[in-house]
Amino acid sequence: MKNYIFTPGPVAVPSEILIEMAKPIMHHRTKEFEAIFAEVREGLKYIYDTKQEVFVLAASGTGAMEGAVVNTLSRGDKVLVVNGGKFGERWGKICKAFGLDTQELMVEWGHSVDPADIEKALGKDPSIRAVLVQASETSTGVMHPTKEIADITRHRDDVILIVDGITGVGVFPLPFDEIGIDVMVGGSQKAFMLPPGLSFAAMSEKAWKFNKTSDLPKYYFDFKAAQKNAEKNTTPYTPAVTLIIGLAAVLRRFREEGRESMFKRHAKLSLAMREGMKAIGLDIYVKDVPSPALTTVIAPPEIGSSKVIKALSSEFGITVADGQDQAKGVIFRVSHIGDIDKTDTLFFISAIESVLHKLGYKFNYGAGTKKASEILFGDQ
Amino acid sequence: MKNYIFTPGPVAVPSEILIEMAKPIMHHRTKEFEAIFAEVREGLKYIYDTKQEVFVLAASGTGAMEGAVVNTLSRGDKVLVVNGGKFGERWGKICKAFGLDTQELMVEWGHSVDPADIEKALGKDPSIRAVLVQASETSTGVMHPTKEIADITRHRDDVILIVDGITGVGVFPLPFDEIGIDVMVGGSQKAFMLPPGLSFAAMSEKAWKFNKTSDLPKYYFDFKAAQKNAEKNTTPYTPAVTLIIGLAAVLRRFREEGRESMFKRHAKLSLAMREGMKAIGLDIYVKDVPSPALTTVIAPPEIGSSKVIKALSSEFGITVADGQDQAKGVIFRVSHIGDIDKTDTLFFISAIESVLHKLGYKFNYGAGTKKASEILFGDQ
Repeated sequence: MKNYIFTPGPVAVPSEILIEMAKPIMHHRTKEFEAIFAEVREGLKYIYDTKQEVFVLAASGTGAMEGAVVNTLSRGDKVLVVNGGKFGERWGKICKAFGLDTQELMVEWGHSVDPADIEKALGKDPSIRAVLVQASETSTGVMHPTKEIADITRHRDDVILIVDGITGVGVFPLPFDEIGIDVMVGGSQKAFMLPPGLSFAAMSEKAWKFNKTSDLPKYYFDFKAAQKNAEKNTTPYTPAVTLIIGLAAVLRRFREEGRESMFKRHAKLSLAMREGMKAIGLDIYVKDVPSPALTTVIAPPEIGSSKVIKALSSEFGITVADGQDQAKGVIFRVSHIGDIDKTDTLFFISAIESVLHKLGYKFNYGAGTKKASEILFGDQ
Repeated sequence: MKNYIFTPGPVAVPSEILIEMAKPIMHHRTKEFEAIFAEVREGLKYIYDTKQEVFVLAASGTGAMEGAVVNTLSRGDKVLVVNGGKFGERWGKICKAFGLDTQELMVEWGHSVDPADIEKALGKDPSIRAVLVQASETSTGVMHPTKEIADITRHRDDVILIVDGITGVGVFPLPFDEIGIDVMVGGSQKAFMLPPGLSFAAMSEKAWKFNKTSDLPKYYFDFKAAQKNAEKNTTPYTPAVTLIIGLAAVLRRFREEGRESMFKRHAKLSLAMREGMKAIGLDIYVKDVPSPALTTVIAPPEIGSSKVIKALSSEFGITVADGQDQAKGVIFRVSHIGDIDKTDTLFFISAIESVLHKLGYKFNYGAGTKKASEILFGDQ
């Protein structure tokens, strides 16, 4: 059976990119690779919309998250972590592992953080040095209000905003310089439609000021070494050569498509999915603002999401993600990033209808594909 | 022009493995990937010759080196670092970055460490908690006596031996359990003939005892989390899926070839290279025991290695590595690991002869290929 991957990372990688990465290996200390790396640097700045360097790390996203913390903060620093899902929880775990005084702002799963709560917390405790948040919380499908949070932190010299943009960068607008984010991490296996194994990070001027006094130990994820080497179109340690070659090819595609078109593409696919799901009577898990990276759909409670996921896999070769922790067996998570277009999205909805029908769920068969079709193909 | 990569990492990757990694992407939380991961675990144990788990990290070798340090040691611990090249120097830098009391045993470039010096240092200072060394120092081409050093550390409960096996594991025998190594790291872009982006690490029982009291901060490289997840055929964070699929294919090849044959292959290729180079009057940089991973050849001083390297590239599309630091412009480094066989090795020597002749070096043309040929094809 053919396989279709609709998970919110790893995502489907275009065949042309897979083939690009299958070319004979290249040494990284060569003019040829340096030219590719220079291209990657420019391409990443374009997607991040920044003048700052965007570091390319041979590590998955969690490595870059650790890098964001250890390059800016100091032992005992007080930080405010927005914890509204598995990845918010991960910020907390990283901060605690490095001995930070970690205050967690708990947000109910399915909800976005209220920026007012962050403002209140910062007002109450002026010793807080950093706010850590997800631009898009992949466990719940929620988008947090990065811009509104940055509006609070950017005019404070003593607080930085650290954003996990792993399912945000390249998915929806997060103009790094304009918004005033201080550190933002990204990952290859998301909007960048590559295999996992690369992650990214950019630092603002304010973050570099924090870096000067930061005393957390760092070596592999030392951004100062990354900065120094990037300026010479290289990395401090052996880069993941094949993934970077794939990245250069992907970034070329992105330039052609244009970042605004990329954002529109994700927005449209996710809107079609949400409306399609609602049309067949399913609820979306997100109560506030949904991320266009993925849609989190509540399965009919009498069936549960695990059965739906299993049937999608056995009947159609489709892989989607189950919920995690409290959402496990409750929701399924379907991606709008990676090598997925409107055709795939429509096909996915037709598969969901087929599977739900077989599992005995009562609904107006065809309502989902009809609704999605109107959105996907309406204004073409 | 066709390209030939003879650098000691990244190395040439077999086409079949490149194609394996170009297959459509797979999600890591699937039965299919778990089966591949289980196979990888067994294959790595075979190559490491250990009953211990061998962790698979999405990071290049330096990441695993950092992991080896942070998972075993504690702030302020005294360590003895063997520094006889760039990678020994790196052990020192990592240890210092993490606040360890770092004592460096300086070894002249081109020489192996004398185990007696390690024994003396440990006897003089019983507070030393770890010895850190390279099995093979890639900057000089030297093999350090891992077994003899382990004979000193293995019977001391309070000292562990941490080995950088990045150009050692799979290259020559380093039976982890039998020798009594405590932590050993490896990298994908060496004997494993894969692109860079994966690294490996195994821990002995003694290393796990050290882990219990280790207070260095760790999250991404936390081996306890890696161990817990490996037992369920997964990793704590998103694995570098495509590289792991390539690794499974490579490890299958290794099983077929047999590790003893692998070791013999590298030994033979490196012997042929050394003898071939000597036959045309060139000296080998290594004064003690050469590593079979690579040969470090001193270029004719009146020409210098940079010219040789440039000509190899422009005339034959061959990439080799220059020396580093004090050896830059003095030596070139040619690899015997990766997808390189006896034919490639002979061809390489014929290219060197051609290039040196053109550069005006006087020698008995054909003596290098003749000598190498006798070794490579003599007893087939």
